[in-house]
Amino acid sequence: MVEPASLTVFAVEGIGEVTPGTDLALLLAEVLDQSAGDYALADGDVLVVTQKVVSKAEGRVVALDHHDEAAKIALVESESTRILRRRGSLLITQTKHGFICANAGVDLSNVQEGTAVLLPLEPDRSARRLRADLRRHLGVEVAVIVSDTFGRTWRQGVTDIALGCAGILPVLDLRGTTDAMGRELQATEICIIDEICSAADLVMGKATGTPAAVLRGIAPDWFGEGSVAEHVVRRAEDDLFR
Amino acid sequence: MVEPASLTVFAVEGIGEVTPGTDLALLLAEVLDQSAGDYALADGDVLVVTQKVVSKAEGRVVALDHHDEAAKIALVESESTRILRRRGSLLITQTKHGFICANAGVDLSNVQEGTAVLLPLEPDRSARRLRADLRRHLGVEVAVIVSDTFGRTWRQGVTDIALGCAGILPVLDLRGTTDAMGRELQATEICIIDEICSAADLVMGKATGTPAAVLRGIAPDWFGEGSVAEHVVRRAEDDLFR
Repeated sequence: MVEPASLTVFAVEGIGEVTPGTDLALLLAEVLDQSAGDYALADGDVLVVTQKVVSKAEGRVVALDHHDEAAKIALVESESTRILRRRGSLLITQTKHGFICANAGVDLSNVQEGTAVLLPLEPDRSARRLRADLRRHLGVEVAVIVSDTFGRTWRQGVTDIALGCAGILPVLDLRGTTDAMGRELQATEICIIDEICSAADLVMGKATGTPAAVLRGIAPDWFGEGSVAEHVVRRAEDDLFR
Repeated sequence: MVEPASLTVFAVEGIGEVTPGTDLALLLAEVLDQSAGDYALADGDVLVVTQKVVSKAEGRVVALDHHDEAAKIALVESESTRILRRRGSLLITQTKHGFICANAGVDLSNVQEGTAVLLPLEPDRSARRLRADLRRHLGVEVAVIVSDTFGRTWRQGVTDIALGCAGILPVLDLRGTTDAMGRELQATEICIIDEICSAADLVMGKATGTPAAVLRGIAPDWFGEGSVAEHVVRRAEDDLFR
């Protein structure tokens, strides 16, 4: 498993407003075509797209009065299969996908007044569809990751992680690989798609709402098949903190 | 708060073996000086260095028979203030620093036979010292982050996070900032140093043991004062999962 010696990550500029029914792949293809020069999407790139625009394009938008705390909580509960913790208006829940996050991923920032944006129904499928459509529009073979911003246990601050992916190995499995001294490695399953989302978030403005970034230069053998649902979401029976 | 439009991350090649007493800053300065051309360390760069070489240089190495499970567990317990979970030989503990991780960060990969490497005593201080020494050796103003590889709750695979930092804001605080539609942002404290460590890990080989990377291009206003101990480690009373 050879790591790349260098990587570049850049923001995808010029994506306008996305609303239910927007053809997101076409919109991305238009701003990432040859006219983008060095920033045109190319074979081997990884395109990271935020959940928010994927959800909006897919129509995962519901009416919600942002000032109605009871309605907010009811919406979060309806998107959840389990409540893990509750503190004030913050709920940590398990979503129908198996993600554990704040408020079931229900999103109230950068959304239209009086609405909330929900997580995509199947983020892996969203990524697969975007990947296929970009291949069709631009003739490029890229990986696609749908990202979101999650809090973590034990550490302050949020980071971006992957909700869905297509065309990339979610977790590099180095089990059986030896270290520089010929002994078996310990920490051997690296969640590269979460690391890629974190790298992408550094160029995607929370305030400006830039909803996509491209990471260029990953190792060719990192491309492959896999899904977040199958390879990243930890099964309850393997988890020590539920 | 303006995000950069693009970033580059590259591996620091040519660092040889690090042992107790190695002057790590001098070693890094030698491989990152002007002879490195485009890869020479420059003002505004962020240098990410893995815990393993920092600990080795600082002499945080102890004797340990890797085949002696009882000795391993005793060592992990001696590095911990609290055991959160135990499954077989895996312990999730809280270290004296307040980090919660597997086996108290005791490291058996890429270490000399018959030894184990412990976490630095004060990783923020390690970062501050490296930063000051690099300024002295190379005349550059850079930020330094000491990284390590941690597992997470609820998600498979490990990612790199920050144990210590110097010269950079650990968490971007966007509280009070408004979104593109003029409303207050929700997820507003972004742990950029963890995201930077994740980006760096993508070019640092676990198997080859490349122990450092440079991230170039972060926004000038991300530089500043802060520490992991103070700004990233969540206080027990604020935590929902202990």
